[in-house]
Amino acid sequence: MTFDIAQRFRPDLPPPEAPWTDPPRYSFVGGHNDPGSVPFAGLAEAATSVLRREGERLATYNLGGSPLGYRPLRELVSRNLAARAGLNAAAEQVLITSGSLQALDLVNTILLEPGDTVIVEQATYGGMISRLQALGVTIVGVDVDRDGLDTDHLGRLLDRGVRPKFIYTIPTVQNPTGTVMTVERRLRLLELARDYGVPIFEDDCYADLLWGQPRPPSIRALDEEGTGGQVIYCGSFSKSIAPALRVGYLVADESVLAQMSALKTDAGTGALEQLVLAEYGASHFDGHVEQLVSVLHAKCAVMAEAVSTELGSTATFDSPQGGIFIWLTFPEGFDTGALAGPARAAGVEFNPGAGWSADPVWGARRLRLCFGQPSHDVIREGVAALADAVKTMT
Amino acid sequence: MTFDIAQRFRPDLPPPEAPWTDPPRYSFVGGHNDPGSVPFAGLAEAATSVLRREGERLATYNLGGSPLGYRPLRELVSRNLAARAGLNAAAEQVLITSGSLQALDLVNTILLEPGDTVIVEQATYGGMISRLQALGVTIVGVDVDRDGLDTDHLGRLLDRGVRPKFIYTIPTVQNPTGTVMTVERRLRLLELARDYGVPIFEDDCYADLLWGQPRPPSIRALDEEGTGGQVIYCGSFSKSIAPALRVGYLVADESVLAQMSALKTDAGTGALEQLVLAEYGASHFDGHVEQLVSVLHAKCAVMAEAVSTELGSTATFDSPQGGIFIWLTFPEGFDTGALAGPARAAGVEFNPGAGWSADPVWGARRLRLCFGQPSHDVIREGVAALADAVKTMT
Repeated sequence: MTFDIAQRFRPDLPPPEAPWTDPPRYSFVGGHNDPGSVPFAGLAEAATSVLRREGERLATYNLGGSPLGYRPLRELVSRNLAARAGLNAAAEQVLITSGSLQALDLVNTILLEPGDTVIVEQATYGGMISRLQALGVTIVGVDVDRDGLDTDHLGRLLDRGVRPKFIYTIPTVQNPTGTVMTVERRLRLLELARDYGVPIFEDDCYADLLWGQPRPPSIRALDEEGTGGQVIYCGSFSKSIAPALRVGYLVADESVLAQMSALKTDAGTGALEQLVLAEYGASHFDGHVEQLVSVLHAKCAVMAEAVSTELGSTATFDSPQGGIFIWLTFPEGFDTGALAGPARAAGVEFNPGAGWSADPVWGARRLRLCFGQPSHDVIREGVAALADAVKTMT
Repeated sequence: MTFDIAQRFRPDLPPPEAPWTDPPRYSFVGGHNDPGSVPFAGLAEAATSVLRREGERLATYNLGGSPLGYRPLRELVSRNLAARAGLNAAAEQVLITSGSLQALDLVNTILLEPGDTVIVEQATYGGMISRLQALGVTIVGVDVDRDGLDTDHLGRLLDRGVRPKFIYTIPTVQNPTGTVMTVERRLRLLELARDYGVPIFEDDCYADLLWGQPRPPSIRALDEEGTGGQVIYCGSFSKSIAPALRVGYLVADESVLAQMSALKTDAGTGALEQLVLAEYGASHFDGHVEQLVSVLHAKCAVMAEAVSTELGSTATFDSPQGGIFIWLTFPEGFDTGALAGPARAAGVEFNPGAGWSADPVWGARRLRLCFGQPSHDVIREGVAALADAVKTMT
């Protein structure tokens, strides 16, 4: 008789993963990117030159260097942030992570215990919500509009006695709303965080994909111009280069990084990916991102037009100011969770808003559509199919 | 005044990581490998060809495929295990992990709660000991000799009422003893595990580095020939290709992998490393490992001779049957923890045995010396310097 290890599993595990199936024809979920924009020839060239020069170092954990990560990659991050986000971060203040998800895990691990509270934007990254829920943390949502996190609402929450362990914000190309927090609000957010002694966790993963306006200084940059120490910052190469590469980064004061390093027990982030990103990015990052952003901007326009044409006034949205997604709001009483079944039957997959909202009831009439991966034609056909599914609901 | 996030840290964190410093002249710690054996030209060639063919897929998480990992890499693992370890594992029974450390974390997470017990070999992998300690698990050691885990001792422990959640074993090129468990003992271990309903976690990370004898069938292979289901198996490319690549794998029944997949929340293991390993390994794995093993075997001989010459009867050891380390035992009363300071002053770094033993008192007169990375000359000079440090102790 076959032994069943499952009978020895600890009792409080999440449900097992369902078997993997191919995505449907019109897949508008996930942080996937434009396949035609992957700079694979440049990455291959970078791999060849960096392996010829430094390949022997793969024999040693962390390439024989600091567990913070491959130094030329930390220097690239440092240069990029100075040029793009107004943020001065020495290479010693950069920790390379195995994707930004590990960055979220490290921040959560050093700060959170069950029963704690975290303030997040009312609509926010689903991967953060599921992590906070798994940790037994209370999630409190703060309003977010086209100018980003509503600091007046935040002030009222703090005034009313909400005491978060930190405030999690995605200020630049907010996920899922695609909005950008104004500089005024960034400064007000910092002021509130200082007044109430609350750390800010700034997730800037999509910020490289901003279009049509200058990128505002990051909140950490504004803080460092002032008294400093208030902000842990994270970013990623998933959106700017390729999501299947698992390389993100944290920027924080050395003492904070030292604590997180003690908890990063993975023996380092994949060195080949670090080597290749550093080599490729040193001379190609800006040019590549400029090309990528123009492709995504065009896809966004196609999706926005398709949504307006096919769904008319049934779904409203703010025009994304960058990124790879549109956040739709349906009329009161509409349930995007219930739409998922008919949409799936029509070959359409989207993110129901409940999973991307601090309050699932608030999120129930909302949904996220990602446009980074599908072609213009697939976007148009898929939105039309989604609109047909919506009609069956109303 | 600068805000200090450290004042918001949860109170039960491990100590922060000390600032990184260059390793000393004679560094005999860590699972590093022979730099001259890194097949960097082959890896670069593989990168070029696989990126040309599949580079666009980097735009999609998990390369657009199953979260179990890149299928050609799982197929390589499957072929390798059939040919090398007598283990028949379909690609659906292979989960690619971000290094074997993630494999350890996943197994620990599905099976262990604080207060549980795990049986390990008396001398075992320090990274597993620190993980079990952090989880609040009781570690019980079972004797290990030149024939591997002592199943008579295991039988007595189980008979006496020790009830482990699982038995963790490194049967082939045991870490740190370099021994190999006999087939007879593997079968007896399985029998005991079945009788007492205990899962076995078989860590085969060093098994590719065996020399001088045919590789015995893995415990999971022997189990699958019988009733099956008793064993979760893990392996790695860290030892056979390069440790700075973070790619390991788990082999288990589909239901067990489905549970672990639900807890592998890293959005996939680095895809570039998976692509390159699969492409390179498809035609080069066996030849590369054969060359690598001969280099390591020669280094082992140099270190064994140096230890015998310099330390004489002060330190005893079993000749390693593969791998990258020698496990030394000093006379009763000797403390290798106290040796670390004088050794460090002489430029020598080693792993004190306490951290590699289920019982730190038992381990106190033992230590591990790694020989994978240093040259023959560095090995000889370093062991001589270590012997000088030992003399100051006695």
